[in-house]
Amino acid sequence: MSLDPLALYDLYARYGALIDAGEFDAWLGLFAAECSYHIMPRENWERGLPAGLVYCDSRAVLEDRIRALREANKYNIHTDRHLVGLPRTVGDDNGAALVEAPFAVFQTEKEGESRLFATGLYKDRIVAMTGELRFREKFVLLDTFAVPSLLATPL
Amino acid sequence: MSLDPLALYDLYARYGALIDAGEFDAWLGLFAAECSYHIMPRENWERGLPAGLVYCDSRAVLEDRIRALREANKYNIHTDRHLVGLPRTVGDDNGAALVEAPFAVFQTEKEGESRLFATGLYKDRIVAMTGELRFREKFVLLDTFAVPSLLATPL
Amino acid sequence: MSLDPLALYDLYARYGALIDAGEFDAWLGLFAAECSYHIMPRENWERGLPAGLVYCDSRAVLEDRIRALREANKYNIHTDRHLVGLPRTVGDDNGAALVEAPFAVFQTEKEGESRLFATGLYKDRIVAMTGELRFREKFVLLDTFAVPSLLATPL
Repeated sequence: MSLDPLALYDLYARYGALIDAGEFDAWLGLFAAECSYHIMPRENWERGLPAGLVYCDSRAVLEDRIRALREANKYNIHTDRHLVGLPRTVGDDNGAALVEAPFAVFQTEKEGESRLFATGLYKDRIVAMTGELRFREKFVLLDTFAVPSLLATPL
Repeated sequence: MSLDPLALYDLYARYGALIDAGEFDAWLGLFAAECSYHIMPRENWERGLPAGLVYCDSRAVLEDRIRALREANKYNIHTDRHLVGLPRTVGDDNGAALVEAPFAVFQTEKEGESRLFATGLYKDRIVAMTGELRFREKFVLLDTFAVPSLLATPL
Repeated sequence: MSLDPLALYDLYARYGALIDAGEFDAWLGLFAAECSYHIMPRENWERGLPAGLVYCDSRAVLEDRIRALREANKYNIHTDRHLVGLPRTVGDDNGAALVEAPFAVFQTEKEGESRLFATGLYKDRIVAMTGELRFREKFVLLDTFAVPSLLATPL
């Protein structure tokens, strides 16, 4: 499966922008009907430990999670800013493209300080559905295990 | 109005690179003859308050501002490094394309420390003039109101 | 010499990703058989001083350096995350394209803290070899002279 690079760039640009804008319904629309969303620290991934910080193995669970985040977010008011590097296709598997992209997320607290929140690598499976690219699997490999326990917005 | 994505990417790459290189005349050349340049903190924008940190509503005012910045810069010696995320077209209006791109600016002081200076979102209007893309409106939405008062270089 | 922008984007995406993944043999494969790799702080570059932090003027020297880094890395365990901005071609010289791209490198220490490590500008010469783009010269212009003396991985 060979993806149009420009369509891929647009998908990742929208992915980060929709989180930062708080448009979570549109963000969910970037996922396939059957999808998963994982956040895992690098330590666990390198040791083959399955435990992740966030594990949503269906779209229903991901939608629930987003609803919960919106509630939690009322008590952790901040804004996100995603910078996603150029994605690249590294292989394919069963009709899905394996795509990787580095990212950094910056957060700004109510007091006005902007700071680095997290860096990592997206390791995703992407499918084309009726001409549009969608995430079948979103795997967020975090560079650190030491993220604040309250992940109030998706990464 | 539909823009060539690669021309758009090139415009944003040049926008950041020319500031970082201190090539402000070439940077001004990225703006249309009729143009505006605003910097506004997110708080004001979300509340509909018009007050911005920088407000240039014509090219003459923007050119003046750049001249003033160059003077101020003599007393605030630093270097900038812009990282601009992938821009995406989100709509169009009256022959202009509405384009958004996230950014982070890092500054390095004379003592040699590099640090995060600001993050935000460009929300721009872009027109095609004789085959070249130009900024009709540059709107810099800053994630924080707490930037140092002396903005010695454009964002 | 006119490069395909998408091939150029892919080259820079791979450049950063292969360092972050520790795949240094594949990373070396992005360089031409005759190549150089320099890291120079901005101060020296602006004053025309030739002294750099790293100076490899042949592929053999670069390969040696990478071997040494791998040894040193055992005592400075960290992970890198490169964010490379959109590259742009700024000229050409003797069959090589002159290409620039801004970058930020974040590091995560064993204790789990992710932080900004360095920012700068790649100023490279790129050639096309049997259909593939390769670095003839990689010039890493660092925004600061104050990087830790132990550069345990390439920038």
